Amino acid sequence: MTARVPASEAAALVRAVAPDGASLESDALRERFARAHWSAVVEPGDADAGRLIERGGARTALAALRAARHGSLATPDIPRAALDRWMPRLDAVDVARALRQAARFQARLLIPGDPEWPVGVADLGPSAPVALWVRGDPQALAQLERSVALVGARAATGYGEHVAIEVAAGLVDRGFTVVSGAAFGIDGAAHRAALASHGTTVAFLAGGVDRFYPVAHESLLDRIVATGAVVSEVPCGTAPTRWRFLQRNRLIAAASAATVVVEAGWRSGSLNTAGHAAQLGRPLGAVPGPVTSSASAGCHRLIRDYGAVCVTTAAEVAELVDPDAATVDVGRGERPGRTRVLDALTGVARDVSRVAILSGLSLDDVRAELALLEVEGVVEESPHGWRRAAR
Amino acid sequence: MTARVPASEAAALVRAVAPDGASLESDALRERFARAHWSAVVEPGDADAGRLIERGGARTALAALRAARHGSLATPDIPRAALDRWMPRLDAVDVARALRQAARFQARLLIPGDPEWPVGVADLGPSAPVALWVRGDPQALAQLERSVALVGARAATGYGEHVAIEVAAGLVDRGFTVVSGAAFGIDGAAHRAALASHGTTVAFLAGGVDRFYPVAHESLLDRIVATGAVVSEVPCGTAPTRWRFLQRNRLIAAASAATVVVEAGWRSGSLNTAGHAAQLGRPLGAVPGPVTSSASAGCHRLIRDYGAVCVTTAAEVAELVDPDAATVDVGRGERPGRTRVLDALTGVARDVSRVAILSGLSLDDVRAELALLEVEGVVEESPHGWRRAAR
Repeated sequence: MTARVPASEAAALVRAVAPDGASLESDALRERFARAHWSAVVEPGDADAGRLIERGGARTALAALRAARHGSLATPDIPRAALDRWMPRLDAVDVARALRQAARFQARLLIPGDPEWPVGVADLGPSAPVALWVRGDPQALAQLERSVALVGARAATGYGEHVAIEVAAGLVDRGFTVVSGAAFGIDGAAHRAALASHGTTVAFLAGGVDRFYPVAHESLLDRIVATGAVVSEVPCGTAPTRWRFLQRNRLIAAASAATVVVEAGWRSGSLNTAGHAAQLGRPLGAVPGPVTSSASAGCHRLIRDYGAVCVTTAAEVAELVDPDAATVDVGRGERPGRTRVLDALTGVARDVSRVAILSGLSLDDVRAELALLEVEGVVEESPHGWRRAAR
Repeated sequence: MTARVPASEAAALVRAVAPDGASLESDALRERFARAHWSAVVEPGDADAGRLIERGGARTALAALRAARHGSLATPDIPRAALDRWMPRLDAVDVARALRQAARFQARLLIPGDPEWPVGVADLGPSAPVALWVRGDPQALAQLERSVALVGARAATGYGEHVAIEVAAGLVDRGFTVVSGAAFGIDGAAHRAALASHGTTVAFLAGGVDRFYPVAHESLLDRIVATGAVVSEVPCGTAPTRWRFLQRNRLIAAASAATVVVEAGWRSGSLNTAGHAAQLGRPLGAVPGPVTSSASAGCHRLIRDYGAVCVTTAAEVAELVDPDAATVDVGRGERPGRTRVLDALTGVARDVSRVAILSGLSLDDVRAELALLEVEGVVEESPHGWRRAAR
């Protein structure tokens, strides 16, 4: 996808933070710029920032931070440790550059309260993202109440990718959005299958949405942008780091209605996503596999030790979100007498008293069972006694 | 194994019911004969018989039954329905023949109270077997407190048999007896692996122990007799029927300390064994497999819907019986600061303030983390700043 160079830079920056064209003078617009600023100052998951912004808004919080830099004493509600974290960044970050880059890539800023803001992330409390950067259709994020995160090992097996594809396609058929992390292996298979089934898929990245990672998934991510959304909580220009991957995982778990691990080694990163889902009280599923496959060891661990539901089909995955949709399997409770009379009717025809002896049932019970079995068409009376009916 | 023709028939019959050579006149011996008689009159799982025998012993119960046949009114405690079930058999069974056959095959009678009687079957209450017929070493039954039933599909896959073999061998290494049903597929693989590992294995049959079923497993069952035990609750000469298979399954579940289903189709008979184990409060495990394999569908169903523990190794199976033996996996709780500082130290060397900006941590935290990481040997200070230590 070619980056677009805007005619007026200011207009482009505004479009990045407020694509609905709010007036430059409005408080709302300035609040959006302040959120964008905060998203560049803090690392994902900074609860101190979340609490401060929650109290008086992002602009007020930013003003307090600046006042603290200039020695003002008007910031008693910012923890010292938080100030020490934020100050070096406050002076160093170039927010305008991040916004210009967002404008070039037609990335949009979403903040809490926007209609497209994914409702699930509120469960992260003060460590929820201060903002999200979205390429593609932000509307896709509004549909995450009916979504499943399909995650798993980068080093997936053919089996794992096959199951990811089957489950993703089945979820799309049931109207679910497929969420994942755009990594190699399971993630990529899930996104691709959702696209192939003409479904909506959303990829959460650990770095900025201007730099697709992994690079080899650039065209896959372009295709996701075209119909779904590629999302990050860090601004454009931000590199993916291990910390940001871990925080991205928490975001996947929070934004999705359920999380399913398709394949995972014993210490796979997707177990981190699973852990966040469990901590958030989100339904968690894991796909079993051969016990001889190390790529399934993490899934078995989740089922065994962490209460993950064993899921084997798209229907079972959908049940994680919609328990009412479960297809109840009503086992046929067979009458013991039926089994025992049929056991006695092998080979030759037998009279009632012989059947009673062979089955260990009373004559009356044998007569009753034979009558019922005759109605079912399973036995018939012959001149030599009762026998199984010819098929 | 060649049948042995005894010199004195009476002596042989006595040896079958009382191998320790109790005197013919003793009440105990007559009680054993009465138990043998009852085991031929009732079908497995007849709780009315269990209750009646429990009250006054097998001889008294048999006398009451005979009196009822002759119209005596001295049997107010036998339910009418039970009388109707037992009477046809009482007149028809040839107990002496069953005993002669037992003697020929060196099968021994065990009754509750015998030192070898498997303690677990008491949990079946009044529907526990009235007697057990054993070929091989009855002592093997006394060791079932440390045993696991490995059961599963006759139509097992190579994967399932492989896992059955691995788990059975691992259980033998841990001093467990391997219990199963001698069927094709998983059962056979479990018995064979236990034998190959020089362990004890016990096979429960649905028919008499004089007729090995399936016939193709005759030499396998001969080998089990040689070092372990082949057991049935029906007397010699009794055919295996579907009802007796279902009752045999309850016996496997009750006699073993835990039950594990290795492979099972959606409606496999081994799910019946699993159901009995769960009903008896016995630990129940199931081995997962590929979701694309119908031979694992029953196992996944047990894990998903019936609370079976997902087990993948012999060690995990052993834990079902010995929860204390569990090897606890203590995950290394990594400091967030550690991750973030290391994220910032990629490529070139950087000074503390640059690391603070990149990591979003305070200068103090960065200095502390760098000191700790230096101790760990993970980072080092160079003339150009901090960098990851060369390996």
